[in-house]
Amino acid sequence: MAATQAENLSLVVHGPGDLRLENYPIPEPGPNEVLLKMHSVGICGSDVHYWQHGRIGDFVVKKPMVLGHEASGTVFKVGSLVKHLKPGDRVAIEPGAPRETDEFCKIGRYNLSPTIFFCATPPDDGNLCRFYKHNANFCYKLEFGNSGNKHKVVDGNGSASPATLERKKLEGALIEPLSVGIHACRRAGVTLGNKVFVCGAGPIGLVTLLVAKAMGAAQVVVTDLSASRLAKAQEVGADLTLQVSKESPQEVASKVEGLLGCKPEVSIECTGAEAAIQAGIYATRSGGTLVLVGLGPEMTTVPLVHAAIREVDIKGVFRYCNTWPMAISMLASKSVNVRPLVTHRFPLEKALDAFETSRKGVGLKVMLKCDPNDQNP
Amino acid sequence: MAATQAENLSLVVHGPGDLRLENYPIPEPGPNEVLLKMHSVGICGSDVHYWQHGRIGDFVVKKPMVLGHEASGTVFKVGSLVKHLKPGDRVAIEPGAPRETDEFCKIGRYNLSPTIFFCATPPDDGNLCRFYKHNANFCYKLEFGNSGNKHKVVDGNGSASPATLERKKLEGALIEPLSVGIHACRRAGVTLGNKVFVCGAGPIGLVTLLVAKAMGAAQVVVTDLSASRLAKAQEVGADLTLQVSKESPQEVASKVEGLLGCKPEVSIECTGAEAAIQAGIYATRSGGTLVLVGLGPEMTTVPLVHAAIREVDIKGVFRYCNTWPMAISMLASKSVNVRPLVTHRFPLEKALDAFETSRKGVGLKVMLKCDPNDQNP
Amino acid sequence: MAATQAENLSLVVHGPGDLRLENYPIPEPGPNEVLLKMHSVGICGSDVHYWQHGRIGDFVVKKPMVLGHEASGTVFKVGSLVKHLKPGDRVAIEPGAPRETDEFCKIGRYNLSPTIFFCATPPDDGNLCRFYKHNANFCYKLEFGNSGNKHKVVDGNGSASPATLERKKLEGALIEPLSVGIHACRRAGVTLGNKVFVCGAGPIGLVTLLVAKAMGAAQVVVTDLSASRLAKAQEVGADLTLQVSKESPQEVASKVEGLLGCKPEVSIECTGAEAAIQAGIYATRSGGTLVLVGLGPEMTTVPLVHAAIREVDIKGVFRYCNTWPMAISMLASKSVNVRPLVTHRFPLEKALDAFETSRKGVGLKVMLKCDPNDQNP
Amino acid sequence: MAATQAENLSLVVHGPGDLRLENYPIPEPGPNEVLLKMHSVGICGSDVHYWQHGRIGDFVVKKPMVLGHEASGTVFKVGSLVKHLKPGDRVAIEPGAPRETDEFCKIGRYNLSPTIFFCATPPDDGNLCRFYKHNANFCYKLEFGNSGNKHKVVDGNGSASPATLERKKLEGALIEPLSVGIHACRRAGVTLGNKVFVCGAGPIGLVTLLVAKAMGAAQVVVTDLSASRLAKAQEVGADLTLQVSKESPQEVASKVEGLLGCKPEVSIECTGAEAAIQAGIYATRSGGTLVLVGLGPEMTTVPLVHAAIREVDIKGVFRYCNTWPMAISMLASKSVNVRPLVTHRFPLEKALDAFETSRKGVGLKVMLKCDPNDQNP
Ligand SMILES: NC(=O)c1ccc[n+]([C@@H]2O[C@H](COP(=O)([O-])OP(=O)(O)OC[C@H]3O[C@@H](n4cnc5c(N)ncnc54)[C@H](O)[C@@H]3O)[C@@H](O)[C@H]2O)c1
Ligand SMILES: NC(=O)c1ccc[n+]([C@@H]2O[C@H](COP(=O)([O-])OP(=O)(O)OC[C@H]3O[C@@H](n4cnc5c(N)ncnc54)[C@H](O)[C@@H]3O)[C@@H](O)[C@H]2O)c1
Ligand SMILES: NC(=O)c1ccc[n+]([C@@H]2O[C@H](COP(=O)([O-])OP(=O)(O)OC[C@H]3O[C@@H](n4cnc5c(N)ncnc54)[C@H](O)[C@@H]3O)[C@@H](O)[C@H]2O)c1
Ligand SMILES: NC(=O)c1ccc[n+]([C@@H]2O[C@H](COP(=O)([O-])OP(=O)(O)OC[C@H]3O[C@@H](n4cnc5c(N)ncnc54)[C@H](O)[C@@H]3O)[C@@H](O)[C@H]2O)c1
Ligand SMILES: [Zn+2]
Ligand SMILES: [Zn+2]
Ligand SMILES: [Zn+2]
Ligand SMILES: [Zn+2]
Repeated sequence: MAATQAENLSLVVHGPGDLRLENYPIPEPGPNEVLLKMHSVGICGSDVHYWQHGRIGDFVVKKPMVLGHEASGTVFKVGSLVKHLKPGDRVAIEPGAPRETDEFCKIGRYNLSPTIFFCATPPDDGNLCRFYKHNANFCYKLEFGNSGNKHKVVDGNGSASPATLERKKLEGALIEPLSVGIHACRRAGVTLGNKVFVCGAGPIGLVTLLVAKAMGAAQVVVTDLSASRLAKAQEVGADLTLQVSKESPQEVASKVEGLLGCKPEVSIECTGAEAAIQAGIYATRSGGTLVLVGLGPEMTTVPLVHAAIREVDIKGVFRYCNTWPMAISMLASKSVNVRPLVTHRFPLEKALDAFETSRKGVGLKVMLKCDPNDQNP
Repeated sequence: MAATQAENLSLVVHGPGDLRLENYPIPEPGPNEVLLKMHSVGICGSDVHYWQHGRIGDFVVKKPMVLGHEASGTVFKVGSLVKHLKPGDRVAIEPGAPRETDEFCKIGRYNLSPTIFFCATPPDDGNLCRFYKHNANFCYKLEFGNSGNKHKVVDGNGSASPATLERKKLEGALIEPLSVGIHACRRAGVTLGNKVFVCGAGPIGLVTLLVAKAMGAAQVVVTDLSASRLAKAQEVGADLTLQVSKESPQEVASKVEGLLGCKPEVSIECTGAEAAIQAGIYATRSGGTLVLVGLGPEMTTVPLVHAAIREVDIKGVFRYCNTWPMAISMLASKSVNVRPLVTHRFPLEKALDAFETSRKGVGLKVMLKCDPNDQNP
Repeated sequence: MAATQAENLSLVVHGPGDLRLENYPIPEPGPNEVLLKMHSVGICGSDVHYWQHGRIGDFVVKKPMVLGHEASGTVFKVGSLVKHLKPGDRVAIEPGAPRETDEFCKIGRYNLSPTIFFCATPPDDGNLCRFYKHNANFCYKLEFGNSGNKHKVVDGNGSASPATLERKKLEGALIEPLSVGIHACRRAGVTLGNKVFVCGAGPIGLVTLLVAKAMGAAQVVVTDLSASRLAKAQEVGADLTLQVSKESPQEVASKVEGLLGCKPEVSIECTGAEAAIQAGIYATRSGGTLVLVGLGPEMTTVPLVHAAIREVDIKGVFRYCNTWPMAISMLASKSVNVRPLVTHRFPLEKALDAFETSRKGVGLKVMLKCDPNDQNP
Repeated sequence: MAATQAENLSLVVHGPGDLRLENYPIPEPGPNEVLLKMHSVGICGSDVHYWQHGRIGDFVVKKPMVLGHEASGTVFKVGSLVKHLKPGDRVAIEPGAPRETDEFCKIGRYNLSPTIFFCATPPDDGNLCRFYKHNANFCYKLEFGNSGNKHKVVDGNGSASPATLERKKLEGALIEPLSVGIHACRRAGVTLGNKVFVCGAGPIGLVTLLVAKAMGAAQVVVTDLSASRLAKAQEVGADLTLQVSKESPQEVASKVEGLLGCKPEVSIECTGAEAAIQAGIYATRSGGTLVLVGLGPEMTTVPLVHAAIREVDIKGVFRYCNTWPMAISMLASKSVNVRPLVTHRFPLEKALDAFETSRKGVGLKVMLKCDPNDQNP
């Protein structure tokens, strides 16, 4: 037991194409930090990108960096000033934790803070490892037992059932991608009865779909190039899907309108493709909102005046802020079901296979299980 | 057939306690109006109040007035300028239609327009009758077939099944009370993952509960004095309920917090009772919102400073505006189920019995069926 | 006198380059309309464009159209249902008046209504004429006397001084361009202490500057290609100006930041130039807003991802809604001074000279005086 | 010199009526703190209240507490981690600095954080002393030179003129009360052309007036019992004033409407008197907002239903958050002039006289000068 704790197997990217499983020391938490025993960590497109290209835009891997930022774990040790957590608590980890109390933090938009710490964004290490320390204020207790409805048989208070524990740990790691969907729908102002157009059925498109439905969207239409991804979209709740291929952006917009019976109030772009952004502008109802989640090319050619004179607002999304508490509430009340998103699981020791699976684009979300003593979903 | 059309049986209040079924002439629609053959009209607490007391506050029944404002019907005749409706269309009726394009209309808050026409608010006649004419812009087509999901077997396009037609007509009449819930939740800013406290489990408390859940509330706790009303609340989706009796407002607030595991971000008061308003202030989380739907006494004693220093906003609700389209979208996509609210049905000829049932408070929503040839739900 | 009233001199565009002064009949107001004796009408860039090109985008002059939409006048005759106006009232005219109570009108964004009537947008006639009839709900009484401060000697109530009358009539016509600035600043969310970047010092850039200052902006920097336009900007209140020529958009952004000491929270683009839109994106602070007022080319190439990942919202402006009442309040309280914007005046008979002056771009706002008996400013 | 630094004269309240000037040790700043040499500290009503009563509501002076929270000073020493400040910098001090990164801090409403540190609120010491240490993130550099308009002769960059330095130090201390006005007007949503009713012409009513005008209010009417306070209100910019005495709240509301020519969109209550809160409800336009700044009795009797059915929102204000940067921008650009608010000045040694002056209510804001070597305004 002491032996396994002494080692901290970590997945480290050294440069383009150079990904290694290495033994790192177990870190010591600072006064406001907690040391976590990692449980589940999902693989994100950005992790694969750092592995393949050694960079994303201006963020360059200049020294070895641990990957991973979609994570849940168990508190192992708490820093001297930490009050709200204790060893044994199951937590979900918000990977972005501001370093300074700057103007962005003060107004509640800490994701925009230029000096923010963010897991697996160079030079900050991620949490695809056995033991990881993090700012305790950005670790959120997975309290699913509390949500019990007194009128139903609940999983118990204090003595949560094994099933609840599994849910906690698995879903905890999915809060990170879910948060992107929450932030996108929140910035879009999705509300009751809305018609919503989600462009792209990758993991991000699908969490956006889930959140839009949970926020009261009446109908969500999802587009993608891939029929299998659209099948998944239907499985998790898309009201309508549209497979696109060679249509012009105007044609896509017109088909979306045809399917919904009217133009959508909200479009959420989750591909980054220029054609899709254009389709989003043409499709959205006057006075509505197009949210850009997908990250496209440096310069994009778009019918901007078409958006402007119809007062279609164009809003980007940079990660998220203030989403973990609401995501935990939602998962606890089972108002959203994220589990179907996970299509593959690997133990941490098989991380290279897991990344290869993710890179090939088969399935949707690939999950790594970091605790050798707890490999359950 | 011509004979039945020639008569327009109407339920008319003449003064306190004086309710009569009378034959009125069938009105002729103006250029921007439609003549409707009424189908379903729900009885509201205000209808009962006008019958019992001949007034509500400053609104006094000075001349005979047709009651009823929660209604759906079928277009029978269209005015010369009406383009979006044709005979045979099933519609839900928004009972408030502004008479003037004043400052409130221009900013989109037409419910505040002081000269608004409103069904069954003196001196404006309501629609508890066989034939009724209304501003065509405030009659909304019940298009449930369109909402068809191409991946599911739908009720058909164009040739809607009898089941769909029933839903349309029944649910169309329930959009009016549902609209109060929509407007309340919208002004409260209910959003994903919220904990919500709904005070009162009458028809208005229950529609508020339904809408809060549809907007993504994680947990809604409903209070009432009556155990049977709370049982209904559970049936339609309350996560938690609390029967109150002699507790102080602080005690109620504390129990609500205990049940939810934290203070609610939003409280929605649907009783009008002073004690309940006080409980709402004490219960709501700092920075949250208390919405007042219930209409209480002229002067109310409340711990206002307790709300102020915790920045709990207090917002009232006057009817609704801009709710019919979103309500129709919701009903069409079945994201909300209002049917369990209807506990009794009567033909228009039995309106006095229906009002007596409503007055006694047995059941919840009493529905009148105004079309002698179509008495189905 | 009766003779001059019998004729209705009007400025009519027949096609590209074909502008004529013609005698039109004096129209008769409908029940909800007023007939106005026109006083002052400003020439807008769009008027010049219709004259030069016979079209703007999809709006094509297919039959002769009266130009002009920046106007004030005096009520001459009221329709049978008009209650809030009487002959002799001085009014400012909101040129866009919705024809239908559609979804956009109901939510208070009537400028987006696709069937809106709009002066001098084909096929709707404008008001560069002697007599013009308009929807009475979109004619606003110029009540400057009411604003009287009891601590100062005021222009009187009921018996306004000649000076006040002049202000009313002149400034009434300037409310239209001012409204574009109001709508832009409102959509930008300009607030106390903001640093604002206004791109372009044409009439629209300058009204935007005036409004931004009135809404509490601490510092506004204005850019233009032209030194004389920047001199005007300084005259009317720009804190800082920047003459641009061959700089890259990034360089412009960097200079703006240098001048303000930080990035602006708000940028408002009033040129339509692609380079300026790009500069606006680069310049705006993370979490801020770029408003597009200028109407540029169909397709625009912009660093969209740069806006998206910094959550700089991009919002267009289509004319305005709900601005006249607040503009009148502002002008009445003298919190904004629009008069320096007018650099030239011509009688209606000299309309062709006036248009030629405007086309050459000398000066800023050219004003036409339509009442032969009242040619004062 | 070393001798004067060794002593830290401080104004300490020991209990009701027991106020003493005492020598405290000079504190040592922690890593994220700065040690400040205090310059100007205004006396607030709450300081006087703690002196007179030893408590405000639940906040009880249980051990000796230094008073003062409206302050500016000069950085004397910086903690090891402080980067944005250096010795010699003039700063304004935000007295509330959160201790924990809790949910309220994360969403940008840190004033609601229950564990916040706040100067001179038991048990936290204030800054009416010679030397005071504070969280460096809540000390804001008074950069008035930067705001220089290149078209005017400015006070210089780096070598600010003595006049600028004086302004900095004096106005720095007034940012605290000004912040209450900013937060109130911001929560009220004061915007261009608004008519605003400010109830009470004490220091808080007057800063609210100043801010409302700066945010574009067209007309502000101020009420008070005292003619001399209303004279001050006129001096600093009130458009209209109303001396009230025995009128009913409805009568006050009606007079306010008469003066403005319409009901105000916004009312801001700055007295705490029940009658004034009632007047605020009656006075406000349907759909408008009443902000409660004044802190009244525990229970208040108000016509709540009158607010509710007209959708007049009632919002409290608890201190402020995110106001210092915008206040500094405003002061730097001279868009607001706070200096006339200061009617009395005393050296720190005469603090007891100063408090006596403040208690008597003569004048408005009494300022203490804490630096024996710099007693200029
Ligand atoms: N803004 C942020 O904070 C943030 C956070 C996470 C991810 N992202 C971005 O979101 C995007 C989506 O992420 P993902 O993990 O789901 O990626 P993904 O590559 O798995 O999915 C993208 C999907 O879009 C589809 N697609 C491509 N072109 C299309 C088109 N023209 N129309 C419709 N569908 C099209 C693809 O077939 C694919 O299924 C990426 O660009 C990613 O960088 C942004
Ligand atoms: N603001 C509006 O536009 C609007 C519109 C419709 C209805 N209303 C008002 O909403 C209120 C509710 O309408 P309804 O039709 O549901 O009425 P209802 O009388 O059927 O229901 C009220 C419920 O509140 C319960 N109640 C009473 N005191 C309580 C307390 N202290 N705590 C908890 N529950 C308590 C009652 O037992 C009852 O079940 C009424 O006051 C009505 O006037 C307002
Ligand atoms: N969205 C709307 O509802 C609306 C309403 C009115 C006007 N407009 C548009 O607003 C724009 C401005 O109108 P205007 O009447 O002031 O026009 P204008 O042509 O008089 O002024 C434009 C100014 O921009 C300057 N300019 C050009 N390129 C520039 C650059 N790269 N950087 C800085 N300045 C530059 C020009 O020198 C000129 O002074 C036009 O595009 C017009 O079509 C839009
Ligand atoms: N909410 C907060 O965060 C906050 C912050 C600071 C101050 N306050 C409160 O704001 C209020 C004002 O503070 P201040 O320092 O200006 O107090 P103050 O006592 O100096 O001024 C109050 C003024 O109100 C006038 N007044 C009393 N009754 C009135 C009535 N019925 N109508 C009109 N005027 C009336 C008085 O004559 C006096 O001039 C106090 O209640 C204070 O506790 C609240
Ligand atoms: Zn990710
Ligand atoms: Zn009703
Ligand atoms: Zn124009
Ligand atoms: Zn104070």
